[in-house]
Amino acid sequence: MKPVYYEHIHTDKYSGARYGILHTPHGDFETPIFMPVGTQATVKTLIPEEIEKVSDGLILGNTYHLWLQPGDEVVKEFGGIRGFMNWNHALLTDSGGFQVFSLSKTRKITEEGVYFNHYKSGEKLFLSPEDSIRIQNNLGADIIMSFDECPPFHSDIKYMTESVERTIRWAKRGLLAHENKNTQGLFGIIQGGGNKELRLHMINELKDLDFAGFSIGGLSVGESKEEMYEMLEYLKDVMPFDKPRYLMGVGSPDDLIEGALDGIDMFDCVLPTRNARHGSAFTKYGQIQVKNQSLKLSKDPLDECDCYVCKNYTRGYLNHLVKSDEILGQRLITYHNLYFLKNLMRNIREAIKNDRLFEFKKEFYNDYGYKMKGRI
Amino acid sequence: MKPVYYEHIHTDKYSGARYGILHTPHGDFETPIFMPVGTQATVKTLIPEEIEKVSDGLILGNTYHLWLQPGDEVVKEFGGIRGFMNWNHALLTDSGGFQVFSLSKTRKITEEGVYFNHYKSGEKLFLSPEDSIRIQNNLGADIIMSFDECPPFHSDIKYMTESVERTIRWAKRGLLAHENKNTQGLFGIIQGGGNKELRLHMINELKDLDFAGFSIGGLSVGESKEEMYEMLEYLKDVMPFDKPRYLMGVGSPDDLIEGALDGIDMFDCVLPTRNARHGSAFTKYGQIQVKNQSLKLSKDPLDECDCYVCKNYTRGYLNHLVKSDEILGQRLITYHNLYFLKNLMRNIREAIKNDRLFEFKKEFYNDYGYKMKGRI
Repeated sequence: MKPVYYEHIHTDKYSGARYGILHTPHGDFETPIFMPVGTQATVKTLIPEEIEKVSDGLILGNTYHLWLQPGDEVVKEFGGIRGFMNWNHALLTDSGGFQVFSLSKTRKITEEGVYFNHYKSGEKLFLSPEDSIRIQNNLGADIIMSFDECPPFHSDIKYMTESVERTIRWAKRGLLAHENKNTQGLFGIIQGGGNKELRLHMINELKDLDFAGFSIGGLSVGESKEEMYEMLEYLKDVMPFDKPRYLMGVGSPDDLIEGALDGIDMFDCVLPTRNARHGSAFTKYGQIQVKNQSLKLSKDPLDECDCYVCKNYTRGYLNHLVKSDEILGQRLITYHNLYFLKNLMRNIREAIKNDRLFEFKKEFYNDYGYKMKGRI
Repeated sequence: MKPVYYEHIHTDKYSGARYGILHTPHGDFETPIFMPVGTQATVKTLIPEEIEKVSDGLILGNTYHLWLQPGDEVVKEFGGIRGFMNWNHALLTDSGGFQVFSLSKTRKITEEGVYFNHYKSGEKLFLSPEDSIRIQNNLGADIIMSFDECPPFHSDIKYMTESVERTIRWAKRGLLAHENKNTQGLFGIIQGGGNKELRLHMINELKDLDFAGFSIGGLSVGESKEEMYEMLEYLKDVMPFDKPRYLMGVGSPDDLIEGALDGIDMFDCVLPTRNARHGSAFTKYGQIQVKNQSLKLSKDPLDECDCYVCKNYTRGYLNHLVKSDEILGQRLITYHNLYFLKNLMRNIREAIKNDRLFEFKKEFYNDYGYKMKGRI
């Protein structure tokens, strides 16, 4: 049996959204699912017992960061990321590619791999597809990613073609390098920016290879929402149906709903945790700045919500914590924001099961204050 | 019945250390006790459920900070600090005096009160003894403090005398201003720096007034440990026996033991929480810098300790968190450091009950790596 596979259960008969189960060595997860980001083997501010409550049990770690600090060999010594951070559930790691391209000021891409500089020290570093897989084998996540280049959405056709062809070759090299085929599922990553032909080409090149699932990279990287949604709608019908589909780096409430409508099964994003550290909270009626003066005297909870934070603290107290730069404020809002997305995904799944994701979208958008966009 | 009073139970027959019960409206506490500091209505990084586990249920809030942000009237609206931060146990507030003198670059002391500048904005502010009590009445702690000047330990005799006389007058004015005599116990504060005559004079002036207890201020403010211990030894025999004795701002393990030996019942200090945020942890064998390279591969717990952190995380993981500037590192070390002091105080009380605080000191110092000092 493959360590990671997708079991399709239901298709929303109006939208075509997918409800299914993602099977992993450390848990089976209803999809669509949102995965909190635990960049440095910690979902910022939270302990694992709290992550359990605000996630579905599948979180993400960043290969790039853990390779540099404390080092993947060190993490392996502690039983992988799961043992290191005392997380008893499932885990996914990215390939490191995105950070190589986004965090380094200079880099040189060769067929062999990428030369770049350490994002803090400036030290010269090199990462190849085989390195990425070896590091991810050491980090020991249930789901791992092919090493890819993430070219800008609007790259010219010549560069985009070269990049896509190279990433295809890298994906194949990664498959060969993968040593834990019985315990870790390797996903291929579909790049190609805004170019549908190249996206389709990449899918055709990778779909019959031994990947456990497919990720969509290179979206939510600066293009407009309309451009992203158009690409997602296109990909919906051409991605392999029987494999899990993971839209990387996407996590605003509207994008989660739109992604689900386009058959996405998995999402991750730093948005809920990063926003929280900047004092911004998701609520049923839209995002709010917690330090806003209007909250100062409010004895209401942060949101109409049954999470620990909303049951125990007032907006007024949270306002005070954020104004006072107190870590507890960041911690409590992080908790709520993640819970908010967990709850949103639960509602999305429920809606798909009942063939009413379009209606749910309408209701959610109406409360949240989003303007309706694209198809209803 | 007075809201706050001390019940003496046992005197260590060799050292003279006191074991007793501090009665408050929100709990009775075995003494000597250490009180974690929750400056801005939060013990930094922790939720109340955690503070319960790492304290004995009595914590401190800072009048100065809460007066300025969000304002004592606001806090009162939320049910006082306890309601505001969702803390269901007991609380003590300081008078604000210490911050007025330590945080403001300039200030002008008059008989009426102190003119000074906001520690951040520079705004001109004024605080009188009556203001301090009124603010503390609004903040609603079980135990509140007289407004005092905290002169430098080595002030000249003329200044120290003037200061002490004024603080005596301020203490009397505070007593008159105190409006919640049935629900909040007001402590007098003994100042006088390194001058024993003035300390004694102040005690004589205040001891028969209606104070619920007495604080010792102006120690641990830059004088040597020997000077502090000499003063504590002197005060031991002249402080009122039937009232709780609170040594303000003291919290290193050796000072807690020395203070207990000199009959102190209550302590507070930012040391365990502030140190934690700088990656420094208390352990049985002394303080350690958690980011020290020697911990990188260690699978040992932080300390020989049964706290949540020591049961669930390795030194190696904590080393990684601190090196990576992760908030979770600050949070976990804060938790352990407070638990360490809670446990130390429990051991001190046990030793007093068994007339063996001197022996305990010797054992603790030996493990911790402290040199023995003063009396053994």
